[in-house]
Amino acid sequence: MADMERIGFIGLGIMGVPMVGNLIEAGYAPTVWNRSQPGIDACVALGASAADSPLAAARASDILITIVTDSPDVEDVLVGRDDAAIHGLAEGAVVIDMSTISPAVTRELAAQLSARGVAMLDAPVSGGDTGAKAGTLSIMVGGEADVLERCRPVLEAMGSTITHCGPSGAGQTVKLCNQVAIAGALLGVCEALSLAQKSGVDQERMLAAISAGAAGSWQLSNLGPKIAVEDYAPGFMVRLMQKDLRLALEAGADVLQPLPNTSLVQQLYHQLQASGLGDEGTQALARVVSGLGQPISR
Amino acid sequence: MADMERIGFIGLGIMGVPMVGNLIEAGYAPTVWNRSQPGIDACVALGASAADSPLAAARASDILITIVTDSPDVEDVLVGRDDAAIHGLAEGAVVIDMSTISPAVTRELAAQLSARGVAMLDAPVSGGDTGAKAGTLSIMVGGEADVLERCRPVLEAMGSTITHCGPSGAGQTVKLCNQVAIAGALLGVCEALSLAQKSGVDQERMLAAISAGAAGSWQLSNLGPKIAVEDYAPGFMVRLMQKDLRLALEAGADVLQPLPNTSLVQQLYHQLQASGLGDEGTQALARVVSGLGQPISR
Repeated sequence: MADMERIGFIGLGIMGVPMVGNLIEAGYAPTVWNRSQPGIDACVALGASAADSPLAAARASDILITIVTDSPDVEDVLVGRDDAAIHGLAEGAVVIDMSTISPAVTRELAAQLSARGVAMLDAPVSGGDTGAKAGTLSIMVGGEADVLERCRPVLEAMGSTITHCGPSGAGQTVKLCNQVAIAGALLGVCEALSLAQKSGVDQERMLAAISAGAAGSWQLSNLGPKIAVEDYAPGFMVRLMQKDLRLALEAGADVLQPLPNTSLVQQLYHQLQASGLGDEGTQALARVVSGLGQPISR
Repeated sequence: MADMERIGFIGLGIMGVPMVGNLIEAGYAPTVWNRSQPGIDACVALGASAADSPLAAARASDILITIVTDSPDVEDVLVGRDDAAIHGLAEGAVVIDMSTISPAVTRELAAQLSARGVAMLDAPVSGGDTGAKAGTLSIMVGGEADVLERCRPVLEAMGSTITHCGPSGAGQTVKLCNQVAIAGALLGVCEALSLAQKSGVDQERMLAAISAGAAGSWQLSNLGPKIAVEDYAPGFMVRLMQKDLRLALEAGADVLQPLPNTSLVQQLYHQLQASGLGDEGTQALARVVSGLGQPISR
């Protein structure tokens, strides 16, 4: 067996920790770094080695994986800070950014890394913490095909569906398309449920009647029943969805593509966040839609 | 075997003719009427008997089925005209209206019929002409449960999924909820495809990457690939969807439930209809969404 690539991993949150666990399970020996200590401790307990900076993690890596919150966070750990990863990556190394961030920022970072002889893949995921734990994430990859082939065994340790979407940034664009499609389906589901309720029709009977046909969707089958029983516990939190919708609208603005439903859903989620409910699940959109049909106090 | 119910059938269009065919297949001997001759000729060729008015069809029926275009059309054949069905229905008869019309108009008609001792079910369908031919329609039923049980064998000749949604009008409400959920999912799909295209990402790769996850929907899987190859041939025509969205918005207005996405999709379809494209399939919504990101001539 060929020597395994040395893996670095930055970003040890609800997604990162189980992904590191799956890499260890697959035989890798990751060197990890995180802004706060609990994620590091969790990964060390799984068998990972701790680095004391992004730079140190990069020095110990042939392939450096990042999964942090937003574009500025990726910029910070890769190129922004004094001890950024870029200062520790050798020529021939690869960065795989699995965060969901701006396609435009992705392309800028890829260019900066490329000038140092470092390749970059954007590889955002869907499937949530459940998919991260099970190693069944769907991974949407942008970048050069040969770099993806080199990294495929590493990605296969974390995900079950790996799609090459196109050049640098294309993985991020496809992830944003995913969120845009979700926003549409979910608002339709919320409007259907509110219309049924206000009309005196049992929501669960309505869901049973329409789920198998042309109105069917993952959102309808999985979040519809939760909405019907007012279960707003998060699978995916509103405030994280808002970040993704903002990125989608920025990506739309970059190419002058209006996204009217995406914008509408963002506005409705503002209402939810204004009520302090940004940590609820995305299905809490139903609270706003249903509330639109309620009296306003004078 | 008990004597079979005598069936009347009014509305012999793209849906009605194959539904009559399935009733004959199941052993019924329907008496049919239609505003224009071709539908009558088609049904007589299948073995149906022709009536010369709604009243005559009603006189020959224990159960009278209607499937016509809109609320005024159902009102016309049931109660509006001199030779309307109501004048020929005996006490104990049942009307099953399988058109998609207003829940409020449905309840008014049910009340008028009830005063004559005639029961009414609203039983709109989804599944299109394909489902009508195959006898696999999904039928959403409003009305009394015992009337539904009496009529179930007749409905089972035409559909494979029969859901009792609640009292009179509830079947129509659920059908409108179905269209509302479709409108949301479809606009999300169109926005995702337009964002991919304008960003230089292959639409089919994007669809492949996102179809199996939380963005998945019947609209994405069935209409997304058509949009990617600019196939706008109708499964279900824009102008018929506009009728249903209007009914949904009216039903929303009746109970003061705002339906912002449904309204948005209706407005976007106006743009399509203004270009003379109302006979295209609902997926032609993508033309408008994509066109929103195109220059306007000065």
